[in-house]
Amino acid sequence: MRRFNHMPHPLRIQSTFYANNLAYTAIFRLTSILARDCSCATAESSSLSSKYSKTSQPHVDHRVLATAQKLFTPSPYAPGSPLFLPNGTHVINKLISFLRAQYRQYGFREVLTPNIYKKSLWEVSGHWQNYKDDMYEVRGRGATGETEGEIGEDESYGLKPMNCPGHCLLFKSQNHSYKELPVRYADFSPLHRNEVSGSLSGLTRVRRFHQDDGHIFCRPHQIGKEIASALSFVDMVMNTFGLGQYRLVLSTRPEKDFIGSIELWDSAEAQLRDALNDGRRTWELNAGDGAFYGPKIDIQLQDSDGKYHQLSTIQLDLNLPRRFGLEYHVAEGEPDYNPDTPGKATPVLIHRAIFGSLERFLALLIEHYAGRWPFWLSPRQGIILSVQQDEAVLRRVQEALVQFSGFHPVDGDSGDIQPLSSSETTFLIDVDTSNQSLGKKLQRAKQLKYNLIFVLGSRNLVDGTIEVDVTGQMQSGGDNTLGKFSQVVESHLGMGFSEDPRAVKMKVDDVYSLLLQLEKKFL
Amino acid sequence: MRRFNHMPHPLRIQSTFYANNLAYTAIFRLTSILARDCSCATAESSSLSSKYSKTSQPHVDHRVLATAQKLFTPSPYAPGSPLFLPNGTHVINKLISFLRAQYRQYGFREVLTPNIYKKSLWEVSGHWQNYKDDMYEVRGRGATGETEGEIGEDESYGLKPMNCPGHCLLFKSQNHSYKELPVRYADFSPLHRNEVSGSLSGLTRVRRFHQDDGHIFCRPHQIGKEIASALSFVDMVMNTFGLGQYRLVLSTRPEKDFIGSIELWDSAEAQLRDALNDGRRTWELNAGDGAFYGPKIDIQLQDSDGKYHQLSTIQLDLNLPRRFGLEYHVAEGEPDYNPDTPGKATPVLIHRAIFGSLERFLALLIEHYAGRWPFWLSPRQGIILSVQQDEAVLRRVQEALVQFSGFHPVDGDSGDIQPLSSSETTFLIDVDTSNQSLGKKLQRAKQLKYNLIFVLGSRNLVDGTIEVDVTGQMQSGGDNTLGKFSQVVESHLGMGFSEDPRAVKMKVDDVYSLLLQLEKKFL
Repeated sequence: MRRFNHMPHPLRIQSTFYANNLAYTAIFRLTSILARDCSCATAESSSLSSKYSKTSQPHVDHRVLATAQKLFTPSPYAPGSPLFLPNGTHVINKLISFLRAQYRQYGFREVLTPNIYKKSLWEVSGHWQNYKDDMYEVRGRGATGETEGEIGEDESYGLKPMNCPGHCLLFKSQNHSYKELPVRYADFSPLHRNEVSGSLSGLTRVRRFHQDDGHIFCRPHQIGKEIASALSFVDMVMNTFGLGQYRLVLSTRPEKDFIGSIELWDSAEAQLRDALNDGRRTWELNAGDGAFYGPKIDIQLQDSDGKYHQLSTIQLDLNLPRRFGLEYHVAEGEPDYNPDTPGKATPVLIHRAIFGSLERFLALLIEHYAGRWPFWLSPRQGIILSVQQDEAVLRRVQEALVQFSGFHPVDGDSGDIQPLSSSETTFLIDVDTSNQSLGKKLQRAKQLKYNLIFVLGSRNLVDGTIEVDVTGQMQSGGDNTLGKFSQVVESHLGMGFSEDPRAVKMKVDDVYSLLLQLEKKFL
Repeated sequence: MRRFNHMPHPLRIQSTFYANNLAYTAIFRLTSILARDCSCATAESSSLSSKYSKTSQPHVDHRVLATAQKLFTPSPYAPGSPLFLPNGTHVINKLISFLRAQYRQYGFREVLTPNIYKKSLWEVSGHWQNYKDDMYEVRGRGATGETEGEIGEDESYGLKPMNCPGHCLLFKSQNHSYKELPVRYADFSPLHRNEVSGSLSGLTRVRRFHQDDGHIFCRPHQIGKEIASALSFVDMVMNTFGLGQYRLVLSTRPEKDFIGSIELWDSAEAQLRDALNDGRRTWELNAGDGAFYGPKIDIQLQDSDGKYHQLSTIQLDLNLPRRFGLEYHVAEGEPDYNPDTPGKATPVLIHRAIFGSLERFLALLIEHYAGRWPFWLSPRQGIILSVQQDEAVLRRVQEALVQFSGFHPVDGDSGDIQPLSSSETTFLIDVDTSNQSLGKKLQRAKQLKYNLIFVLGSRNLVDGTIEVDVTGQMQSGGDNTLGKFSQVVESHLGMGFSEDPRAVKMKVDDVYSLLLQLEKKFL
C-alpha cells in the first residue's frame, strides 16, 4: 500500500522537503496540502491553532468546543465524515456565502459538477493510475451501470477526490475565444479521499470534505494578473477573519523531469515574481521545489511563536490542459498565436483555494475564536429573555423576535407568511420565556456564548425599549473587533456602552439596523 | 433485476394505482415520486411543462433551452449527472437561497450530512435489503476501509439515495426534551440512484440530483400543525413561482399490513383532514392508499388542459423512528406520556419536500418560463451597451457596471477590493463595449434574453442618465409579473414605461435600488 507519507502536515511543519517529480502523484500536492491529512502526522496536531488565538483564554481543542456548541457529531457509520448539526452547518454556510459574495467581485463563477465519474475519466486525468490508494470506487449494486455509449461499457466509477477533471470537462464543453479568457470556475462540491482510519480525527483528519476550490483557465501572459488577484483575495480573506501575519513562498522549476518548455516556465515564473514583488507581503524563494507540471506559491500563516503553517496554495498546471486536450481560439498577431497550431492555443490552468478544506478552516476558526464567534459568523447571534411572563411582555418578545430576526410579520387575518427574499438579511435570534429567574436565564445565555443578550420586561413596554448585554460580542472576534464594535454602537445610540455594557438601553426599532451593521462590517 | 416499474411518472400520470405494502419498498415512495425517474416512463415525457407555460410561445424542450442559455451540459463520463455551467448553477443556487430564506421563517434548520455510509446503516434503515437495485456501492481502492470500531470491520459503503437515515442519526446524537420538539432538519445534499441508462435524459431522468429535503421529528399531537405549516409553505412557493392551480390528495391507512396502532393512525389522519379543511385548497381522498408506514398528502399541479401532475408530497412515517430507536424525554401528565415507557416517547417523522428534485424543478421552470427568466432568477439579469467606444464612455460604463452589480468601488490608490458582505445584494450584469454597431449589440443582447438592456452614450455623460430597454423583463415571468413590474418602475421613475419601453430614461444612481426592488418582489 503506497501512501503519501512524505507529505507534510499542512499546519504543523514549518519548512519541509517536498519530494519532487514523484511520477504523477505530485499533481495532487495542491489539494493534498490544502485538505488532506496524511498518516505521518500525529494525533495531537488536531489542535491546530492554539497559537493563533489572540485571546488569553486557555486553548481548547476544536472537538471539545464543537460538542459544547453543537456544531457537529461523529458517527461510526461514517468515519471521517462528521455529521454537521444546525449550528455547524450555519457556520459552514456562512463561510460559503462569504466566498460567493467575493467571487462576484473577483470574476469567478460557480459551477456544480458530478460526484462520480467513470473510471475512464480518471484514466485521462491520471488519478486512476496514480492516486488509487486514496480513491473510492463506485459500482451499481443491482442495475448495471451501462453507459450511453462512447466510453467503455459497464465501467466502474470513481468518487471524486478533487474537482479539476470535472472543470476541464466543463471548459471543454464550450467554445472559447481568447477574448473571453480567463475563465474562472469555483466549486464547493463534497470530495472524498480514503484516508486510513487510524488517522481520522475531528474536522482536521477527514475522508469527506469541501474545498473552496477554484480553477482559472487563462492565456500564458495573463498568469501575472491572475496571481496578483489571487494574492489580493488571500489578503482580504486573512484580514476579514483577523488571521494575522503570513508569508508567501515561491517554488520554481525543478532541475529535471519537468514538462513544458523552459520559455514557458521562465515567463510564468517571472510573472509570479512580479506579482509577489508588487504585493505588500514578504516572500521567499524555494528554488527548484515546484512540481513537475508548474511553479506554485504557498501561503503560510505565522503563529504567535513565529512559526509558519501551510494554509492555501496557488498552483500553476501546464499538464492537465494538455491531457484533456483543452484549447481556445486565438487570432493571428496575438502573443499566444502559434503558427504550428494555427488559430488554437492551450490554456494554462491555475488551481487555487483560499480556505482550502472548509472543514479544516472551520476547525482553525473554532480554536482561533476559542468558541467566541464574531456576530456575523455566530450560530448564536442573540437571545431575548423575558423578565416577566405576563401576556403583554410575551407578546412584545414575540414581536421583537420577528423584528430582530428580519422576518416579515405574519398576516394577522389570514395567518399567511410572506416569502422572504434572499436579499433580505435574517439573523439567528432565540427566545427564553421560561419561568426561571432572570438571573438563571442570563447565566444560561452567557454559558451558551450568545453574542447579544436582550432583556425585555414590562417597564420596557412603555417606551419601546430593550436592554442589551453586549459583553458576549465584546469578547468575540479578533483584536480590532472591539474598537469597530464601539463605533457601530456609538453611531447607533449616539453614545457608547462604556457605562454598563451589560445593560445598554436601545429602542426596539433600532436593533435590526444595528445587527445589519455588525453583519456588514464582519463584526 | 427488480425495478420499480409500477411507479408512476410524477409529472405525467394523473391518477395512479399505487401498489401498497410492497414489502419495504413503499417507504421510498415519497422521495421516489419527488425525484426519481422510473423505467416505465417514455422518452417524450422529458418535456414536462408545456401546459404550464402561460406564454403564447411555442413549447421548447428544456434541453434545447438549456443549451441556448448555457445552463448545463451532459457528459458520457457521468451519465445521468449533467455538469452545471455557471448560468445553470446560478439558478440552482437561487432556488436554494430562496428556500433557505423561507426555512428561517418556517423553523427549519439546515444540516450537512455524509454522502457515504457503511452498509450497516443501510441495513438498519432497510435500504440495503430492499433498495439495492437503485443504490451504488462504494469501496476503497487501495487503503482498506477499516472502521473505528463498533460497526463491522472493513465494510463497504452505500452512496446515499436519500437523507432520512442520516437525519435519524443526527436526531439520535442529541438529547431531546418534549419541549424542544418539533425538530426540523433541511438538507440539500447530492443524492444518487442508479437508474437504468436507457431512461436518462436532461434534468428529468437523472442519477444524481439534489432535493429540498426536510424531515420533521414531532410529537404525535403536533402533526396537524406541522402539516398545516407545510401546506402553507407549498402554497407560498407555488404563488411565488406563478405555478398556478394545484390540488391536494390525502391517502389514508391501507386495510392491512400497516404498522402502528389504529389509534395513532386515526389521530394522525384526523389531524391531516383538519389541516386540509383549514386550508384554502380543495382536496380529495384516496382512501386506503397510504403507505404501510403512514398516511400522506400529495400535491398535484394542474396544467392548462385540467390534468393533474404530481409535484411534492408530505409523508408521515411511523416506521423509521422505530427502526432507529429514536426517542425524546417526556414528562408525566403530557398527552404523549406512556406509562409502559416512562419518560420516553417515540417521535413521528414527517418527510417533506416542496420542489422535490431541484433538477426536475429547474427543468419545469425552464419550460414554464420558456427561457424568459424573471429578473430575480435570471442568469442574464442585465447588460450595459456602449454607444461610442471613447474613453469617457467606457469609463462611465465601468462605473455603472460596479454600481449596478452592487460591488464596492475599488480603492483608487491601493487597488484594494473591499470584502462584500453576503447581506449585500449583487446582480449579474454584463457589458458589451465591442466595436460593433449599437444595433448589432442590441440584437445580440435580445437574443441572449437579457432582462434589462442598458444603453450608455456620450450624451448620457452630461446628466448622469442611462437608457434602459425593459422589454425583456416585460416578457418574462408569469401572468401577474407585468403589472407588478409597472408599479415598481413607476414608483422609481415617477412615471411608467408605456411610451417606449425600449428606451426608458433613468438616473444611473437610481438603477441599483430599482434592481433591488425587482429582486425583493420576485419579479
